[in-house]
Amino acid sequence: MIAEIIAVGSEMLTPYRQDTNSLAMTAELNRLGVAVAFKTILGDDFTQLVDAVRIALRRADIVLLSGGLGPTEDDLTREAVAAALGRGMARDQAVVESLKERFNRRGIQIREINFKQGDVIDGAELLPNANGTAPGQWIAAAYEGAPRYLALLPGPPKELTALFAEQVRPRLAAVVPQQYIATAQLRMAVVPESEVDARTAPIYQAYPDVSTTILSTIGEIQLHFLCAKPSLAEAEARVANVLRRCADEMREVVFSRDGSSPEQVVLRLLEARGLTLATAESCTGGLLAQRLTSVPGSSKAFAGGAVVYSNSLKIAFADVPQQMLEQHGAVSEPVAHALAEGIRHRTGAGVGVGITGVAGPDGGSAAKPVGLVYLAVSSGTRTEVRELRLMGDRERVRWFSSQHALMLLYSLLQQAGQAGAVTLDQP
Amino acid sequence: MIAEIIAVGSEMLTPYRQDTNSLAMTAELNRLGVAVAFKTILGDDFTQLVDAVRIALRRADIVLLSGGLGPTEDDLTREAVAAALGRGMARDQAVVESLKERFNRRGIQIREINFKQGDVIDGAELLPNANGTAPGQWIAAAYEGAPRYLALLPGPPKELTALFAEQVRPRLAAVVPQQYIATAQLRMAVVPESEVDARTAPIYQAYPDVSTTILSTIGEIQLHFLCAKPSLAEAEARVANVLRRCADEMREVVFSRDGSSPEQVVLRLLEARGLTLATAESCTGGLLAQRLTSVPGSSKAFAGGAVVYSNSLKIAFADVPQQMLEQHGAVSEPVAHALAEGIRHRTGAGVGVGITGVAGPDGGSAAKPVGLVYLAVSSGTRTEVRELRLMGDRERVRWFSSQHALMLLYSLLQQAGQAGAVTLDQP
Repeated sequence: MIAEIIAVGSEMLTPYRQDTNSLAMTAELNRLGVAVAFKTILGDDFTQLVDAVRIALRRADIVLLSGGLGPTEDDLTREAVAAALGRGMARDQAVVESLKERFNRRGIQIREINFKQGDVIDGAELLPNANGTAPGQWIAAAYEGAPRYLALLPGPPKELTALFAEQVRPRLAAVVPQQYIATAQLRMAVVPESEVDARTAPIYQAYPDVSTTILSTIGEIQLHFLCAKPSLAEAEARVANVLRRCADEMREVVFSRDGSSPEQVVLRLLEARGLTLATAESCTGGLLAQRLTSVPGSSKAFAGGAVVYSNSLKIAFADVPQQMLEQHGAVSEPVAHALAEGIRHRTGAGVGVGITGVAGPDGGSAAKPVGLVYLAVSSGTRTEVRELRLMGDRERVRWFSSQHALMLLYSLLQQAGQAGAVTLDQP
Repeated sequence: MIAEIIAVGSEMLTPYRQDTNSLAMTAELNRLGVAVAFKTILGDDFTQLVDAVRIALRRADIVLLSGGLGPTEDDLTREAVAAALGRGMARDQAVVESLKERFNRRGIQIREINFKQGDVIDGAELLPNANGTAPGQWIAAAYEGAPRYLALLPGPPKELTALFAEQVRPRLAAVVPQQYIATAQLRMAVVPESEVDARTAPIYQAYPDVSTTILSTIGEIQLHFLCAKPSLAEAEARVANVLRRCADEMREVVFSRDGSSPEQVVLRLLEARGLTLATAESCTGGLLAQRLTSVPGSSKAFAGGAVVYSNSLKIAFADVPQQMLEQHGAVSEPVAHALAEGIRHRTGAGVGVGITGVAGPDGGSAAKPVGLVYLAVSSGTRTEVRELRLMGDRERVRWFSSQHALMLLYSLLQQAGQAGAVTLDQP
């Protein structure tokens, strides 16, 4: 079975806003073993809408519509679906009463146009909406002789998500062929997509029953696996198998086999080792600290740190010697080393990170071009420094710097025993 | 004239990836006075593609296709457009030679399948692609008696954007009715969308010739205006007029009339006043510093600061008295005050910001619930403190805290004269 998702709303045809509802719905559909074959986005135009619904009914088994269920004259999804199916509509008095009551409670005068939210397509089931005024509708129909399933859903993501989970998913599950789906995710950092594909394609291509998607985001590559089988154990075994083989192949860049983010993985390892972390950031300007503190409960392993953007703050907050700054410049290996060591010392944390670099677009030179970044991790017993030469704009250089810092922390913490001290020897 | 954008590629039918090319193309089309009426997203299936192209040709004057121009068997956009138009294709020898040369230069063996990138639909113009191997194609056709314009564009955003600007835009400009477009943008912070709409709708609705879009992002509302006229001066006067009236109405929350971000506006005001800024962040964990340093050249006005996540760092880096922390707790008005004053003093900056709060999801209590944030700005002569009670999850509380901090800085710096010292009196 294949699905089409139709998103209705003129705002999604501007340069500023996109349909996002379809992503969550696609994930749900895939878990039912249903692929999304088409997405259509269009505005609140009756004729265009009727045509689009007819096109969808011809080419897809399942048609999900989002938006256009509001109370204004622009909201035409109900009317268009009824017209496309050649059906009438009737006003549901229970919905009308509940609308009246809702408006009454808020002391707002209800207008005649609001009642159209109670219009139900002949033969449709109403789907109660706990989070808004517009109920959804579910229709099982024959269209040109083929069995079709339609759902009309409200546009606001919170309303749609809840309504889909509670009302639409069980109805779909009852009509799609019964099968079990298992998914798995492998996350890798600071490696090119082409390299991941070249090394893992020979593996995952040997699993034609597993659907594999490579997703590339800035500084990270993810492999997503999905398998549908008549039994859950069988599906799970297949994705576990391909995941393990791809993870072995890519082991030097893999940081997570369970969906965890780099921040989560590093914080978890720090906690497991009984260590705290502090950061001294120059070119990243707080980005690393911000990423770490975005994780709930990060205060257990993250103490804080300093944004040492100016040279005087490198001295004041991380005890970088003035003479070192003069001799080597702020963007240098010794200064990264001193930042990591200094912030560790000043905060009493077990591990310190120092980052200094040229994020651009200005400030680069022949000797120290934009993208040159020094990164250090200090555990007190030893300090490990990396020189990075990053490509791209300011945002990309900063993000990659923070990503490399997390990966260096991850690899050093991984190697560290349970003894408490980080071993900073290279593998 | 109306346009349809067709994005081809199976990865855009997964839960992980969206078509983004259409946003930039929509902006360009709008600037030519062309509205996007439909977007279709589908995979690399020949029959589905041919049908989708025919549907588009029936309902839109301009059809832009992105993706499916690569050298693999899955890349079928050329073949599908030719079939939809009932035309043949011929291999262009110049493209074949340039592919051979490109592969030769890189020392890679070219395979027969690569040559299909040289297949040109009969009657199409080739659009050279400076950034990749797949040339685009431009076709002016009659379809069922109506004049139609099609462009086939490569999927990678960098290739598509350049090719669109250099090759497609001028061809479209030559066929769409001549008109001039003016746009303007008003940015407002920490105000509900419903309030902006209620107050500005009576204004912008009096400009039926100006298309107005309200865009709501986290902590910010934007009003976008677009007007098409036979003369540029006329179009510009109309958007300037509606912008000025909406800005006057919303003046207490407007921070930018030229598209500048809150970070840019604050840094510019600091520079104009000859001031530097330092931050001491607890619950935002570096987010404010990170936002400020994301702006190129921010080092001119931003010194840096501290991420004082733990109490001991609040003492060590911002001189918050131990006794104050014990008496009032870390999330309190006096601590925010002390952070702002302390970081200013310790860094020698002219202005200090302190932020402390409960970002959640844990750590809240009846007296200090999740979302309670204290925010302070100190100029040395005076310190201004705000208590915020924010709704939502950790990410939202942190983002709003940084947004409110920027807005408080903006409003205080706005009021400050050119004398150098920030006046911290309320308006």
